[in-house]
Amino acid sequence: MFNQYAYGLGSKKSCIRELFQYGLEQAKKVGRENVFDYSLGNPSIPAPKKVNETAKYILDHEDPLLVHGYSAAPGFEEVREAIAKELTERMGMDIKSSNIFCTCGAAPALITIFKALCVEEGKSKVLGIAPFFPEYRPFSEGAGMKYDYVEADTTSFQINLPALEKKIDADTQCVIINTPNNPSGVVFSRATLEKVADILTRKSKEVGHPIYLVADEPYRELVYGGVEVPWVPSIYKDTIVAYSYSKSLSLPGERIGYICVPDCVTDSKDVMSAVAGAARIIGHVCPPTLLQRVVAQCTHERPDLGAYEENRKILMEGLKKIGYEFAQPDGAFYLFVKAPGGDGVAFSEKCKKYNLLVVPSDDFGVKGYFRLSYCVSKETVVNSMQAFEKAFNE
Amino acid sequence: MFNQYAYGLGSKKSCIRELFQYGLEQAKKVGRENVFDYSLGNPSIPAPKKVNETAKYILDHEDPLLVHGYSAAPGFEEVREAIAKELTERMGMDIKSSNIFCTCGAAPALITIFKALCVEEGKSKVLGIAPFFPEYRPFSEGAGMKYDYVEADTTSFQINLPALEKKIDADTQCVIINTPNNPSGVVFSRATLEKVADILTRKSKEVGHPIYLVADEPYRELVYGGVEVPWVPSIYKDTIVAYSYSKSLSLPGERIGYICVPDCVTDSKDVMSAVAGAARIIGHVCPPTLLQRVVAQCTHERPDLGAYEENRKILMEGLKKIGYEFAQPDGAFYLFVKAPGGDGVAFSEKCKKYNLLVVPSDDFGVKGYFRLSYCVSKETVVNSMQAFEKAFNE
Repeated sequence: MFNQYAYGLGSKKSCIRELFQYGLEQAKKVGRENVFDYSLGNPSIPAPKKVNETAKYILDHEDPLLVHGYSAAPGFEEVREAIAKELTERMGMDIKSSNIFCTCGAAPALITIFKALCVEEGKSKVLGIAPFFPEYRPFSEGAGMKYDYVEADTTSFQINLPALEKKIDADTQCVIINTPNNPSGVVFSRATLEKVADILTRKSKEVGHPIYLVADEPYRELVYGGVEVPWVPSIYKDTIVAYSYSKSLSLPGERIGYICVPDCVTDSKDVMSAVAGAARIIGHVCPPTLLQRVVAQCTHERPDLGAYEENRKILMEGLKKIGYEFAQPDGAFYLFVKAPGGDGVAFSEKCKKYNLLVVPSDDFGVKGYFRLSYCVSKETVVNSMQAFEKAFNE
Repeated sequence: MFNQYAYGLGSKKSCIRELFQYGLEQAKKVGRENVFDYSLGNPSIPAPKKVNETAKYILDHEDPLLVHGYSAAPGFEEVREAIAKELTERMGMDIKSSNIFCTCGAAPALITIFKALCVEEGKSKVLGIAPFFPEYRPFSEGAGMKYDYVEADTTSFQINLPALEKKIDADTQCVIINTPNNPSGVVFSRATLEKVADILTRKSKEVGHPIYLVADEPYRELVYGGVEVPWVPSIYKDTIVAYSYSKSLSLPGERIGYICVPDCVTDSKDVMSAVAGAARIIGHVCPPTLLQRVVAQCTHERPDLGAYEENRKILMEGLKKIGYEFAQPDGAFYLFVKAPGGDGVAFSEKCKKYNLLVVPSDDFGVKGYFRLSYCVSKETVVNSMQAFEKAFNE
């Protein structure tokens, strides 16, 4: 006598977690150095030094009652101000503390937004863009929404615009984009986003209510070669941003991020009230207070991307040479590769023989690809090349 | 076009938060020392020294990738082992790490449990015991359950057993108790809990499914005069415990606690799977990792209750002398007092004239009382006595 949907989600491991577990078992048998695990998106570059230094300074110098006591639900005022100030400076849009609601990372941020936008339980719809982060589905369904998605544009891995236009109906409350993208590593271009804005503006008029664009941006700071990651609210006004410091400050376990509802959003203040209420019913009390104060002092810190860049280069060159095809990965730490033979699941299975762990693309809403998370050691990348070659030629 | 329930929750402040805000405004006018704010339950004794020392040691000596990286969703294995070990030693029941699911505090722990136990959306029921923590209602409703409650036993502020028996029906999935109690400060006795167990055992048979008892225990460590806080699972086997370190380690802002589903619970492993799935759809990824490691090393730390004890004594003696009546507060840091004149809301309003901020009992499911949170400074208590006297005599 318990919830069968929750039981289903909790009793079966995700494909990614299963691969990771398999890798741990395998490492016991053949040695850690002989397992090439590209399954998990756990940052492999440490947090900037200032993070720990700031934490220790706060612990040493501030009143423990204030450090560890409750903050207001959206976070300390001075923390929200620091976040708003950095956004204003960088994005050229006036963001105020009242536009910021700090959360325990991106996952609750997204669920809070979905719950806030769920007008009719079981009918309102979230629309994803394939390939997409697989948790969007349970996040939407858990928030009472339906989840559907736009099929992938497998040429450029930008957005399949005609398919997007076709999928939107009156129940579509929001479209969620993730740029830089997990799993493809692709950054959506300004041209793409402008066309998305056109479609959403037109469709919003047609259906008679705003169709919000949810920009899920945990990888915003992880880009290579100076590629632009446009600030989406300046392109489409009804944009709600979800951000996390997990990747930019390498703090994924600490659970700290935010929701930004800019003033240009239709009924901005009311949407923020709905966000606050939605957060309350998923158990949000406040974001971890020590970490709030830490990130407020580290908003200008950037990850040292050298290690990711090096892995990316070796992988791209090596895989190309072997004959693999993949999307142009300008951001994040993912490579989305066409499975030789055309079956991602079968290819992932085959790779296991060479202790090479890659995630088949099916859960991301595309068949025939696999994802590599290259947030691993350089040795792993270099030593895995032989395995990639064997798997390709088998 | 957003969720009206969430909007309603988010756009109106709780009565407690409103009082607190009023107090801040008032302090600007008449001086902080002249406002006697008994509204909030924010611990006023600092975290034990070992908390900050442990945090700094971890930051200095452990690999930042491990400190700040993701843990498994239920928490690090060694953290769950430390929690299980302490429970096993203290409670005389064999608790294993597999019985522990760490959460971002008690609020998401409760919502996760409710969601896991929601068999039929909009029909399954959570049953509270008045007086109760007001958030139980949005937590239940947010998880898709109905919320109902058993009227208070205003003689002892234990549990109104005949009313409990009457209220349980086939849709009742769980009964939630909070002991030591917020708002009454009362600790439910072993005798009371044994009678509750009798009723639930009988009713479970009658309705043909287990009726779970959810024991919400953030105040477990805050008791005075050596009063026993029984370990509920040893009295009723289908008990799920929700715990938070917010009050015991004075860390309310850091969001760290756990759910314990002991092996004796019917279908224990399946319930734990439902808990894991429910956590996932409210955005739980893992509990804050630095704090996980800290509490694992502080499970034996206890708060220095001296300050609360002193406040409690001065308040009890002072209020009794004036003529106030209240429940016997053996735990937590609350006093639940009968409102002179019989109207809690009117009395709370009256108190404002004397800059005395007390929370009317209506939201707790009982009329005619008010709550005092005596986690304040001793000066506040001593200096407020005149205000209590004036309000009583007006």
